[in-house]
Amino acid sequence: MGVLEADFYIRGILASDRRVLAKAITLLESTRPEDQELAWRVQEGILPHSGGAMRIGISGAPGAGKSTFIEAFGMYLIGQGRRVAVLAIDPSSKRSGGSILGDKTRMLQLATHDRAFIRPSPTGDALGGVARKTRQTIPLLEAAGYDPIIVETVGVGQSETMAASMVDFFTLITTPNAGDDLQGIKRGIMELVHAILVNKADGAFEEQAKTARHILVRALELMHPPVPGWKVSVETVSSLREEGIGRYWEMVEAFRGEMVGSGQLAAERRRQARDWMWEMVEEELKRRFITNHQVSALLPGLEQAVIGGAVPPVVAASQLLDAHFGASRNLGAR
Amino acid sequence: MGVLEADFYIRGILASDRRVLAKAITLLESTRPEDQELAWRVQEGILPHSGGAMRIGISGAPGAGKSTFIEAFGMYLIGQGRRVAVLAIDPSSKRSGGSILGDKTRMLQLATHDRAFIRPSPTGDALGGVARKTRQTIPLLEAAGYDPIIVETVGVGQSETMAASMVDFFTLITTPNAGDDLQGIKRGIMELVHAILVNKADGAFEEQAKTARHILVRALELMHPPVPGWKVSVETVSSLREEGIGRYWEMVEAFRGEMVGSGQLAAERRRQARDWMWEMVEEELKRRFITNHQVSALLPGLEQAVIGGAVPPVVAASQLLDAHFGASRNLGAR
Repeated sequence: MGVLEADFYIRGILASDRRVLAKAITLLESTRPEDQELAWRVQEGILPHSGGAMRIGISGAPGAGKSTFIEAFGMYLIGQGRRVAVLAIDPSSKRSGGSILGDKTRMLQLATHDRAFIRPSPTGDALGGVARKTRQTIPLLEAAGYDPIIVETVGVGQSETMAASMVDFFTLITTPNAGDDLQGIKRGIMELVHAILVNKADGAFEEQAKTARHILVRALELMHPPVPGWKVSVETVSSLREEGIGRYWEMVEAFRGEMVGSGQLAAERRRQARDWMWEMVEEELKRRFITNHQVSALLPGLEQAVIGGAVPPVVAASQLLDAHFGASRNLGAR
Repeated sequence: MGVLEADFYIRGILASDRRVLAKAITLLESTRPEDQELAWRVQEGILPHSGGAMRIGISGAPGAGKSTFIEAFGMYLIGQGRRVAVLAIDPSSKRSGGSILGDKTRMLQLATHDRAFIRPSPTGDALGGVARKTRQTIPLLEAAGYDPIIVETVGVGQSETMAASMVDFFTLITTPNAGDDLQGIKRGIMELVHAILVNKADGAFEEQAKTARHILVRALELMHPPVPGWKVSVETVSSLREEGIGRYWEMVEAFRGEMVGSGQLAAERRRQARDWMWEMVEEELKRRFITNHQVSALLPGLEQAVIGGAVPPVVAASQLLDAHFGASRNLGAR
């Protein structure tokens, strides 16, 4: 029965049925155990048909113009005969609508186009949960024929790092004035990017955007690229005037060409799959640990004692592990 | 009996008895369960007397002149009336002697001085194990009156990140020619450093060192400092001519002054203790998982299936967790 139902989803996705696709994603996001079982079957079924799309991450501080850019970029891609999917990772998102893609009114043209598929950020208590659901959604979209898949993220917590770990091409969008002192560019982001776009390069900001671009190029010359041999580009774009969009897509295509040619893209996909498996295992091990009654009785007191300098971390860890496993101390015995 | 023995170690360490201190560190490094029990008692006993020293990390590629610098810096500190300890994190170290501090012949003066304590890198199968032992050794050295504690590390794997996480002031040593294109400076390191020293700024390299310094200063202007408000300095030094050493120490002292004054040092120590406790817990949870017979029977096949794209990561993770807990699937049920 589950097999039949899974087959319904798999065939619907492969036939690019939007309604079935949306239902399948909802299934992935469900926390009900019976839904999970079915979701896994669906994921197994579509796996051979996934992995082919370019996965693009778009990040940037609030106000950098991510949504406007994605709207312009998405419409450009549709003009090129492509079908585009947009996902979001927003840890601040709640059922009532988060700060990005919470409503689709910010991407009016794209949201109503039948060759675009936009999905707001899933909700979740932890960023890990939000990211996991987004990551699982990507293969479904690929199997349904969307390419590229765009993952939009805000600069909250580790959301960029998580987005970067699930895409092929990570892009930072910034505003002209951010270049001056790299304010508004979060520490560590520069090391993740494959490209930087200085947005709003129009009107009064045109000159300022060129200066920002120059400063960013200089900074990047002094950093190592995320992929050996790839030169990180900085381009000015105007979502308003729709300038620079085509140049950006050519850059992404050039990157894909290089990565596919060298076998790096395939290697990266394999590595991502393996890392992801371990990430899920480790999360669950920790969740079981924290929710163990013996552990949760000790944890607040011991954690405070460690923070206060009354108990060495190694002793606290050992006592917690004893509580969890009910075994004799053997943390150090290796 | 264990209490009496622990007391012997604790009193010996507090009395700065080098022989007892060395024995206590050996105890920490031991993998025998009975030694661990005793080691924990000792660590608990000395905890109230630790935490007062400045912890300095010194990193750099092979050939950057780390040992020569530490020799000159250590002797300078002794001249200032201080007692200095030098530890090493070298994942390539084997019982037969690793690539750094494997023999003490490279720090001849310091190694024989009675106000210096040098300890080679502990051996370990995994970098995590090597780092853990080094981290546990620091409070013992502090209780014995050493200040500063210098942690030397090579640029292998994650060793710098681990060293940076256990020190207050992380310093990169580089050579004059590294500045040109930042070659030889590992990706991600620039973000961790509190200071950069361009070594060998003497003889034929003097001009080149100045150029390298200039390029590095420019690069740092475009990055965020590891601590808000702290300006990362780049200084040229000559271990040979003993130039720049005093200036470097003044920089470290200024940093300590700021950090203590603002309460950031204390906050950082609390955070480190807490992180470390969790790190040990997570390592042990993963070790138990991997060594579980049911899991280890499935793991190689499932991991390959995930890498090969035959099984979705979420399904593999769930099957492994089932094997471990012998429970019904409930990974997604949260």
